[in-house]
Amino acid sequence: MIPHAIGVDLGGTNLKAALVDRDEGIVERTERSTEADEGSEHVEAQIASIASDLIDAAPSGSVAGIGIGAPGAVNWERTTVSQPPNFEDWGSVDLRSSLQSRTDGTLPVIVENDANVAALGSAFYGAGQHADSFIMVTLGTGVGGGIIYQNKIFRGSTGGAAEIGHMTIDYEGPYAKSGVSGAIEGYLGQEFLVQHARDRLVNYPDSTIRDLVDGDLDAITPRVLHEAANQDDELAQTVLAWAGHKLGCVLGSAVNLLDIRTIVVGGGVSGAGDYILDPARDVLPRFIVPGLRDNLRIVREELGNEVSLLGAARLAFEGEQAQVGTP
Amino acid sequence: MIPHAIGVDLGGTNLKAALVDRDEGIVERTERSTEADEGSEHVEAQIASIASDLIDAAPSGSVAGIGIGAPGAVNWERTTVSQPPNFEDWGSVDLRSSLQSRTDGTLPVIVENDANVAALGSAFYGAGQHADSFIMVTLGTGVGGGIIYQNKIFRGSTGGAAEIGHMTIDYEGPYAKSGVSGAIEGYLGQEFLVQHARDRLVNYPDSTIRDLVDGDLDAITPRVLHEAANQDDELAQTVLAWAGHKLGCVLGSAVNLLDIRTIVVGGGVSGAGDYILDPARDVLPRFIVPGLRDNLRIVREELGNEVSLLGAARLAFEGEQAQVGTP
Repeated sequence: MIPHAIGVDLGGTNLKAALVDRDEGIVERTERSTEADEGSEHVEAQIASIASDLIDAAPSGSVAGIGIGAPGAVNWERTTVSQPPNFEDWGSVDLRSSLQSRTDGTLPVIVENDANVAALGSAFYGAGQHADSFIMVTLGTGVGGGIIYQNKIFRGSTGGAAEIGHMTIDYEGPYAKSGVSGAIEGYLGQEFLVQHARDRLVNYPDSTIRDLVDGDLDAITPRVLHEAANQDDELAQTVLAWAGHKLGCVLGSAVNLLDIRTIVVGGGVSGAGDYILDPARDVLPRFIVPGLRDNLRIVREELGNEVSLLGAARLAFEGEQAQVGTP
Repeated sequence: MIPHAIGVDLGGTNLKAALVDRDEGIVERTERSTEADEGSEHVEAQIASIASDLIDAAPSGSVAGIGIGAPGAVNWERTTVSQPPNFEDWGSVDLRSSLQSRTDGTLPVIVENDANVAALGSAFYGAGQHADSFIMVTLGTGVGGGIIYQNKIFRGSTGGAAEIGHMTIDYEGPYAKSGVSGAIEGYLGQEFLVQHARDRLVNYPDSTIRDLVDGDLDAITPRVLHEAANQDDELAQTVLAWAGHKLGCVLGSAVNLLDIRTIVVGGGVSGAGDYILDPARDVLPRFIVPGLRDNLRIVREELGNEVSLLGAARLAFEGEQAQVGTP
């Protein structure tokens, strides 16, 4: 088996890539600014350049292919990225063709949604290694998701499955950005979570949160909440527990539908760890039919961003085996 | 290919079976009382007897196997039914062994959850024929579900997937029987739906519903609501629309998670047709992330109970191909 692959993590701000060894994980990594505001042609050239550098660094013939995790919608054929948020002048771009024409053209190129890629990385290198099937939830700016079923990505009918962030837990609840009432992203998306803390500060005049941001409430971030919680701040702990409770509710719905009992939680907001996850674990069984309540596990993905690079490379190692059903 | 199979629909009240032709559908059907209160041994003998009669009616060697749709939990190996509601003295019964020892023992026997079986029947013989992948919702005493992905049943990790009835649409909503707050079964399950109509009658003193049940409010059924709606009864139409709205909300969550855009609705309560389904169709896109809102379809399964017999037989035709992933 060819030992290496290139994994690319295409973010709105940073473009990351790694040379990955099938067994050992990341061998070499590199990163640059995406410069997404300069248009798709520029970004395509950036990806080709960063990938070529890594291919050149690997022994000749040792690279199986290039996998790319991208935001936005990825088509069923895993070639094309459409409407990624925060990219200028993008529309719909066939990254496979683009990259093959900009490199020597012999390497397979596979594109996949970034949340699915993170899940695949977790399945082979991270917290997901211990389960054949799991639901990955990525808590960041938004709430993303990936479904791994029998070690493969479940992509749905068109490649758009696992939009956990848009599942509702309250059909008359607050509107999330997507327009869905009570969608979990409207509670746990970074902006919503922070706003919730801000709104409640009035009842906690002595909260450490104020001190941590020097009174600048716009500077509150999930990391600040985590830090305050670590300092026994009651408000921070309350807000994170409130968020975890909501997370548990939506995960209950997902478990009912999928009968997948392991949940892996990643993304920046998951840094708050058990402050969020313990309340989620508490409430989870109450939102699941009794017959599916055994062996529930919510674990944190500890690999951080690396999981995306590893998962992207894994796309190339797995080829068509990376997904459930007929590609 | 062997042309026939036996499909068995094990209900708490009635035991139905059919000889099914692979292409033509039901050739012959039979039915008797399950007598579930006489214990599992008796029911097992009943199933063996009804199946044997049909096997004898078919040309020798023309039967591929016996498929059984059963309530309760069915294990991963598709042999054993545990804790079916409304069955006395059952516990956990290996129907495959039981049936093979009670018949000549040469035919494959495959057991599957009844909601999954209905979905498989719809996929090959009913409204689901027009979609490779769809979500089946069965509106009856409870709210059941089945997921068909690329013409196969998605069973989850243990065979328990597609418990749509227990997904929440309101984490602080009313408790359904399962103990899940705001579970859709707590709105659309037959008993809950009828109670909702009863509770609202106070505001509709002239409702046709009273006349249809001769003033005996305990006699209200979903069929009565449908009949009243057909007679332009405002309350009946309002209640069915209320139920349809809730159905649309939960289906939105399911579409977000699965990226499966066709929904097939069956079961007795679905007899109310567009009174329920039109409001569901209206609200559905509002509960789905924008990228997954195209090509949504909610259709009614018109085959009624036959779909369960056809699906059960199909289990035998498909064998291990009946399910997604590794059996």
